[in-house]
Amino acid sequence: MHKSFQRFPKTPSQFLRTIESEVWKPNDDLLPVFSPPVKKDEDPFQSGNLPENLGYHVEMKEGVVYIYADKAAAARGEPKDLPYPNLDVFIDDMNFLLALIAQGPVKTYTHRRLRFLSSKFSVHEMLNEMEELKELKNNPHRDFYNCRKIDTHIHAAACMNQKHLLRFIKKSYRENSERVVYKSKDKTLTLKQLFEQLNLHPYDLTVDSLDVHAGRQTFQRFDKFNAKYNPVGASELRDLYLKSENAINGEYFATIIKEVGSDLEDAKYQYAEPRLSIYGRSPEEWPKLASWFNAHRVYSPNMKWMIQVPRIYDVFRSKNFLPHFGKMLENIFVPIFQATINPQDNKELSVFLRHITGFDSVDDESKHSGHMFSTKSPKPEEWSHEKNPSYTYYVYYMYANIMVLNHLRRERGMNTFLFRPHCGEAGAITHLLAAFMTADNISHGLNLKKSPVLQYLYYLAQIPIAMSPLSNNSLFLEYAKNPLLDFHQKGLMVSLSTDDPMQFHYTKEPLMEEYAIAAQVFKLSTCDMCEIARYSVLQSGLSHEEKLHILGKNYQEEGPQGNDIRKTNVAQIRMAYRYETWCYELDLIAEGLKSIE
Amino acid sequence: MHKSFQRFPKTPSQFLRTIESEVWKPNDDLLPVFSPPVKKDEDPFQSGNLPENLGYHVEMKEGVVYIYADKAAAARGEPKDLPYPNLDVFIDDMNFLLALIAQGPVKTYTHRRLRFLSSKFSVHEMLNEMEELKELKNNPHRDFYNCRKIDTHIHAAACMNQKHLLRFIKKSYRENSERVVYKSKDKTLTLKQLFEQLNLHPYDLTVDSLDVHAGRQTFQRFDKFNAKYNPVGASELRDLYLKSENAINGEYFATIIKEVGSDLEDAKYQYAEPRLSIYGRSPEEWPKLASWFNAHRVYSPNMKWMIQVPRIYDVFRSKNFLPHFGKMLENIFVPIFQATINPQDNKELSVFLRHITGFDSVDDESKHSGHMFSTKSPKPEEWSHEKNPSYTYYVYYMYANIMVLNHLRRERGMNTFLFRPHCGEAGAITHLLAAFMTADNISHGLNLKKSPVLQYLYYLAQIPIAMSPLSNNSLFLEYAKNPLLDFHQKGLMVSLSTDDPMQFHYTKEPLMEEYAIAAQVFKLSTCDMCEIARYSVLQSGLSHEEKLHILGKNYQEEGPQGNDIRKTNVAQIRMAYRYETWCYELDLIAEGLKSIE
Repeated sequence: MHKSFQRFPKTPSQFLRTIESEVWKPNDDLLPVFSPPVKKDEDPFQSGNLPENLGYHVEMKEGVVYIYADKAAAARGEPKDLPYPNLDVFIDDMNFLLALIAQGPVKTYTHRRLRFLSSKFSVHEMLNEMEELKELKNNPHRDFYNCRKIDTHIHAAACMNQKHLLRFIKKSYRENSERVVYKSKDKTLTLKQLFEQLNLHPYDLTVDSLDVHAGRQTFQRFDKFNAKYNPVGASELRDLYLKSENAINGEYFATIIKEVGSDLEDAKYQYAEPRLSIYGRSPEEWPKLASWFNAHRVYSPNMKWMIQVPRIYDVFRSKNFLPHFGKMLENIFVPIFQATINPQDNKELSVFLRHITGFDSVDDESKHSGHMFSTKSPKPEEWSHEKNPSYTYYVYYMYANIMVLNHLRRERGMNTFLFRPHCGEAGAITHLLAAFMTADNISHGLNLKKSPVLQYLYYLAQIPIAMSPLSNNSLFLEYAKNPLLDFHQKGLMVSLSTDDPMQFHYTKEPLMEEYAIAAQVFKLSTCDMCEIARYSVLQSGLSHEEKLHILGKNYQEEGPQGNDIRKTNVAQIRMAYRYETWCYELDLIAEGLKSIE
Repeated sequence: MHKSFQRFPKTPSQFLRTIESEVWKPNDDLLPVFSPPVKKDEDPFQSGNLPENLGYHVEMKEGVVYIYADKAAAARGEPKDLPYPNLDVFIDDMNFLLALIAQGPVKTYTHRRLRFLSSKFSVHEMLNEMEELKELKNNPHRDFYNCRKIDTHIHAAACMNQKHLLRFIKKSYRENSERVVYKSKDKTLTLKQLFEQLNLHPYDLTVDSLDVHAGRQTFQRFDKFNAKYNPVGASELRDLYLKSENAINGEYFATIIKEVGSDLEDAKYQYAEPRLSIYGRSPEEWPKLASWFNAHRVYSPNMKWMIQVPRIYDVFRSKNFLPHFGKMLENIFVPIFQATINPQDNKELSVFLRHITGFDSVDDESKHSGHMFSTKSPKPEEWSHEKNPSYTYYVYYMYANIMVLNHLRRERGMNTFLFRPHCGEAGAITHLLAAFMTADNISHGLNLKKSPVLQYLYYLAQIPIAMSPLSNNSLFLEYAKNPLLDFHQKGLMVSLSTDDPMQFHYTKEPLMEEYAIAAQVFKLSTCDMCEIARYSVLQSGLSHEEKLHILGKNYQEEGPQGNDIRKTNVAQIRMAYRYETWCYELDLIAEGLKSIE
C-alpha cells in the first residue's frame, strides 16, 4: 500500500513491525496526495500555474509504463529511478495468500475470531447502548442529519434518480425540440425527429416507459441490468442524455450531473464520488473526456471524481478494435503519464486529473474468465486472443501502473490516485484476494461472507468497503440477507453507497433513502449510522483539508483519539470499544507468534 | 354497514342476496356522505349558510344518544323515528361469529382458500407480469410518481418528521424567544425561560436530544413509545408544540401542521388523513378543538381530518375525572349531536365537523382488559369501576352513536362519518371480529395473520386495511415478517400509511419513504404499488368529487370496469384477475350452500 501511496492503518503496521522485531516509525510521506479544495474565489478549471514540461519519454513494457529521461535512455533500457512493480513478488505473495485462505487451521481460527467479534459486539451493545445514546444526546448541535456522509460508490451515468431523468428529458424537449441532437454521415436529427423516430412523445413519457429502474427481472441478470441504462430501451437516448460524446458534446449529460451536484450542495451534508468511464479503446478518450469536463465546467464542491475502467477487453478484441491487452493498458495509462510529464501541452487533461481522486475497475464479476494468473501467463502485449483476462490480471496491471504514476505525480507535487475497484459483488473469492493486495478500498465485498480468512484480513487491515444493499437487492442478494449489518457489528469498516440511484432508488435523496432503509431493516442505532457516515468520509477521496473540517483535527489518529464527537456524533465509548477490540485481535496474533518462537 | 352509512362492496352484497333468494338492487342512498371539496374562491371556514335549529332534545340512554322532538317527548320516552342500534342483535351476531371463527371445518376451509389465493397470485404473476408491465408502459403520462396516494393513517401530533419539528422549535426560538408561552396560576414563562428551566438552548438541540424517534428500545413497549411524544422527554414541550390547548392557543401546533399540509400541496400527489384527539373527559373538548381549528384556519386541500378517541376511560376514572363510562360517551357524542341539531349556535364546531370524515379508536391493544362483552355486561352508565371496558365494548358504543348521528346528519344534508378504528395491531383476535361488524375500514390488521376465518372474511368483504409496516417494525413486528405482502398477494385491500412520521421516518417525504421501503424489501412491481395507491384513495375519506377526479368516473364500479388506467396506472389485467378471483370465491360459497340444500 505504501509503495503505491495508498492508505494502510498505523496500528496493524506497528504490530507487524513489532512481530518482525523492528521499530515502526510513522511516515507521512507515504500518504496519498489529494488536491486541496477549490477556494472561494478560485476557478476550479484554472490552468495558469501548471508545471513545466519534464521532457521525459514513456513506454509501456510488459503492461507497465516505464519512464525514461529521453528516447535514447529508452533505447538503452535505462528507466528513471522509480519503484517499479515486481510481478514475481506479487505472484509469490498471491500464492502465499491463496494457500493461506485454504488452510484448515487458519479457517477455523479466523471463523472463531469473527464469531467472537460478533458476540462481543452484542455484549457491548447490551451493556453500553444507553451510555452511547447519552453521549450523543449530550452532544450539542450535531445529529445524524448534519453529519457529513459521502456516497462512496456511485456511477455518473446513473447518479440522478429516474424521476429526475424523466423531468430533464421533458424539459429539454419543451425548451428546444428543434435542436439538432444527432449527427451521422448521412443524416442529422432534431430532438423532435429523434423522438418521432422512436415513436413517442416526451409528454407521454413516464417512469414506466422510461424503464430504467431495476426490478424483479434484473435479479441475477447483470446483462438485463446493463440494458436498463438505455431509456425506453433506446441506446439513442442513452447516447444523448447519459454520454459525454455525442452531437451536442455531452451538454445534457453535464447539465443533469450539475443539477445532481447542486441538489447535494442544497442538502449541504451530502457528498458523492461519481465515476466516469475510460474504456481503453483509444488514447483519444482521455482528452475528449477532459475537454467535456472543462467545456461544461462540470464542478460541484460536493462531488469528487473517479475513473472507472470496464473490464471489457474481450468485447473490443472480438470487434478487432484492439490488437492485444497491452494496447488497452496503454490507452488507459499513457495519456495520463504524458499529461503528468507535460501539463502545459495537456492543459485540459491536467485540470481534469486534478479533480480525479482514484480509479475503479468495473464489470459483471459473475462472468467467469477461466484464466488463472501466474508467472506463466502471457504478458499483456502477448495477450491477443479473444478471451478476457482474469479479474486478478486486470487488477494487478491497474495497480502496477497507478503505482508508478503516483510516484511520478507525487514528485511533481501533483495529486495521486487511489485504487478502489468493485470487488466481491459476485464471482470467485480470488477477486477479494487480489483487491486485498492492491486496493486502498473496495466496493461491495459481499463475498467476504464466503471466506472467513479474507474477512478477518479485511477486518485487521480495516480496508474500507462501500456497500450498496439496495443495489444488491436488485441484482445479487436479497436485502435481509445482506451482510452489511454482520460486517458492521464485527467491526469491518463499511460505508453505505447508492451505486445507481437511477436504477434503484425512489426518492429525491437517494443516499438518505439508502441510510433510512438500512436503519429501518437492520434497526441501526444513531451511533451505528453516524459511525457508518464517519467511515464514508474516511474511505472517500475528500481532501485532507475537508476531512479536517468534517472529522476534526486528529482524524488521522486511530481509536478514540481520532474522533471528535462534536463533528462526527460517534460516541467515544463506541470508538474505544472498536479500538480495544481491534488491538486485542492484533495482539493475539503477535503473542501467538511469540509463543511459537 | 348500510345501516350506519358506511361502505360495503356491491359484489358480495349481490351474492348474499342471491343466497337468500332475494334480488339485489343498488341503492346509492346508503352511501356515506362526504363534504364536497372546497372550491377555489370559497372560504373553507365560512359559516354563512348553516341550517336552522331543529330544536330537538338529545339524551343518552344506555350509552346511545337518543333524539327527541323536545324534552316532553323525552320524558314520555318517545324518541324520533330513527334506526337505533339493537344491542341484543349485535351480541347475537358477535356470538355467532365467535363460534364461526373457532369452528374446525371453517378454519380448514378458509385456510385452504387463503393458501389457494396466494398460489393463484404467484401463478398470475409468473404468467402476466410482463403483460401488466407492457400495459403500464403504454399508458401515457401516468406513472407511480403522479398517481395520487393517501396517507390513510397518520396522527396529527406526529405528522411532521423529527427534523421538521427540530427546525420548527429552533425557528420559533430565533423569531421570538421573549414570547410568553406558559401560564399557570402562579407563574408565566417566556420561551427563553422555558428552555432555561429545561436547562437547554435550542441552538444545541439535536434530533438525538429531541429524542422523539422510536428505536430498539420501543419494540414491544408501547408505553415507552408513548413517552416519545415528549420532545427532550419534557411534557412542557409537547404541550407547547404538539397540543391545541396551551398558553398560545395551540398556535405552534397549527402552524407546523399547516407546514406539513403545504409540503403535501407542493408534492401535489400526496394527501394525508391526520387524526386529532377527543378524549371524552369533558364536553368542552369539542368547542375548544373547533375553535383552535377555526382560529388558526388549519386547512389544506391535501388533508382530510379525523377524530381519534383514546380508550383511556380507566385513567380518567382512577383520577375521578369521570363518574362512569356513559359520561365519557356523552362527552364525546352529545356535543356533536347538538351541533348537528343547532348549527347556528355551534358555528365553529359545525364548520369543523364539515371537515371531519370519520372516527378512529386508538390505544395500546396489547393491554388486556379482562372484560368479555355480553348481554350481561353493565350498561355504560353502570360502568363505574376503574377497569377499562373491552375493545369490543368501546367499539360497539362508538359504532352505535355514529350510526344514529349519521342518520341525523344525512337527513340534514350534512356529511356523515366513517368508523375507522385501529384494530389488530396487537391484542386479542376479538378486536378484529368487532371491527368486522362495525367498521368501514381499519388500521393495522396484523393479527389477521392469526385467524384464517377472519382473514378470509376481510377478503370477501374487501374491508380496507391501512398498514404501517415501519411503525410495526418499531413496535410490534419486524419488517420482513410483516404480512403486508402476503395480504396484498392474496387480494386483501391494503394501503400503506405512515402512522407517526415523527417517530418512524427519516426523510422529508415519509409516505414516499414508506412506499419505497415496501417496494424494496417486498420487491413490489409498479403495478403492485399503483394498486396499493388506488386502494388508499378508495379507503380514504376523500370526497366523491375528488375520487372521481383521481380514479375516474366509474370508480364506484367493482372490477376492471371501475378502473381508469390513465388515472390509476393499474393494469386492467390485474383488475380482471382480482375481480375474477373474488367472484370465484364468492360463487364457491353460494354454490356450496345450494348443494347443501
